[in-house]
Amino acid sequence: MNYGYKKITARDNPEVKLYRRLSGIKKARMQEKSFVLEGYRLVLDALKNGAPIKNIFITDDAFLKYGGELSHFENGSFRVNIISKELGEYMAETECPQGIFAVCSMNAQIQLSEFLKNGSAFVVLYMLQDPGNAGMILRTADALGISGVIFCKSCDIYSPKVVRATMGSLFRVPVAVCNDINELFFELETAGIESDAAVVQGQAELVGQSEYDRKRRAVWIGNEGNGLAQEVICRCSRRITIPMHGNIESLNAAMAAGILMWEMMKGKAYGNA
Amino acid sequence: MNYGYKKITARDNPEVKLYRRLSGIKKARMQEKSFVLEGYRLVLDALKNGAPIKNIFITDDAFLKYGGELSHFENGSFRVNIISKELGEYMAETECPQGIFAVCSMNAQIQLSEFLKNGSAFVVLYMLQDPGNAGMILRTADALGISGVIFCKSCDIYSPKVVRATMGSLFRVPVAVCNDINELFFELETAGIESDAAVVQGQAELVGQSEYDRKRRAVWIGNEGNGLAQEVICRCSRRITIPMHGNIESLNAAMAAGILMWEMMKGKAYGNA
Repeated sequence: MNYGYKKITARDNPEVKLYRRLSGIKKARMQEKSFVLEGYRLVLDALKNGAPIKNIFITDDAFLKYGGELSHFENGSFRVNIISKELGEYMAETECPQGIFAVCSMNAQIQLSEFLKNGSAFVVLYMLQDPGNAGMILRTADALGISGVIFCKSCDIYSPKVVRATMGSLFRVPVAVCNDINELFFELETAGIESDAAVVQGQAELVGQSEYDRKRRAVWIGNEGNGLAQEVICRCSRRITIPMHGNIESLNAAMAAGILMWEMMKGKAYGNA
Repeated sequence: MNYGYKKITARDNPEVKLYRRLSGIKKARMQEKSFVLEGYRLVLDALKNGAPIKNIFITDDAFLKYGGELSHFENGSFRVNIISKELGEYMAETECPQGIFAVCSMNAQIQLSEFLKNGSAFVVLYMLQDPGNAGMILRTADALGISGVIFCKSCDIYSPKVVRATMGSLFRVPVAVCNDINELFFELETAGIESDAAVVQGQAELVGQSEYDRKRRAVWIGNEGNGLAQEVICRCSRRITIPMHGNIESLNAAMAAGILMWEMMKGKAYGNA
């Protein structure tokens, strides 16, 4: 890690301008293959998990508070820029900014076939839109030890809102993006991974009544309002559902995904406990 | 239902002042035994579930949009007040206000012994603080058919944030408040309900490995940061935990509660499906 020579105070500083573009514009993120982090905990999680951070921006106050911890990562190739308090407020997206920001490279997207080679329990998020739900699902996948999460036509995993909502799990859970469902089904089938469509209504197996954990499988979770598209349901080998007593609209997509992941992992969890 | 004679435009209108006090001050809610609702869906859910609404405030625009639906509840004893757009913005707490607000009475708090008389699956939230988590837990309890949720030293269930986060489940799930843990344990024991402490670490039964659904029981969920207090854990008859592979901090309180509720209810769910 190395330090910038002088404090950045100007909004038109090129690095600050890049930060803001990456924060606000998906296309910029795709072009630069980079995304932004805001907040101490997130930056620390990224460093701890070896994420390829390029630039850190930190106010004087935040440096006093967090600088000691950052110095443990002196071998990193990132640059530390001291910024003015005003600039910190300008860059912030959160309500109570902590004065610490970073630009991180996306990991090189590995081939889907490689991604699916190991592990037995995958989740596909298909047209899932809410950043909070996506973050909650990644956190739960992290806790339960899911092999990988694939975003298909869903919200942008590198948007600041999703990144924040993952609370660091983004750096721990293997994640892939594939927006072509033909390709995705082809790769899943080639890898010998069965696809289960999570549905709310209609004929379906009740989750938890079969021995799921013995096979390699991927559970497809659909859109918050509309569920899974029919074309996806038709191509999955099974439909699974969470049997419910009460008001089915009350089970939100992240909670449903959490229960399905739990059922997928619990056999293994008992084995390891 | 009856209509106010003239449009309310003044911020110092007594009903508007009361609304604002109920919105912002817990003590006012306790004194008046009333709370506020904001947004069309929430007001409609309250009406559909027969919640004792006293006053509705609605802008002209919102009345054009939603008035037809409201007229289905003409037998209600509530008053409909037309308000100016500016006043609607003044009363709003959400970012994109829909121009519809209501004051609702709290249902008379029934005796805890009555509350616990029927049903077999209860959840106790002990020192749970986050409104979003409380709302998510109530929604999931609603979907899974939990018998009742008891708030013990937790966030105020009638705060506008919690009410909004329940997305109407507040009107469907039996809810009680009891801040005295001695009383609560006494009533649970008297009712023959066993208490399970949900813990993150330490010696505990792995959830889903016993036949939980055969007994009457209450699962205690603790604080987001600190889990359950030791004094609660000691008084519960069992400790249960969700076995995990990954980063245990990633499982948030609402998701953990959701998985525990699912395990508590799934036996019944299969029976009824």
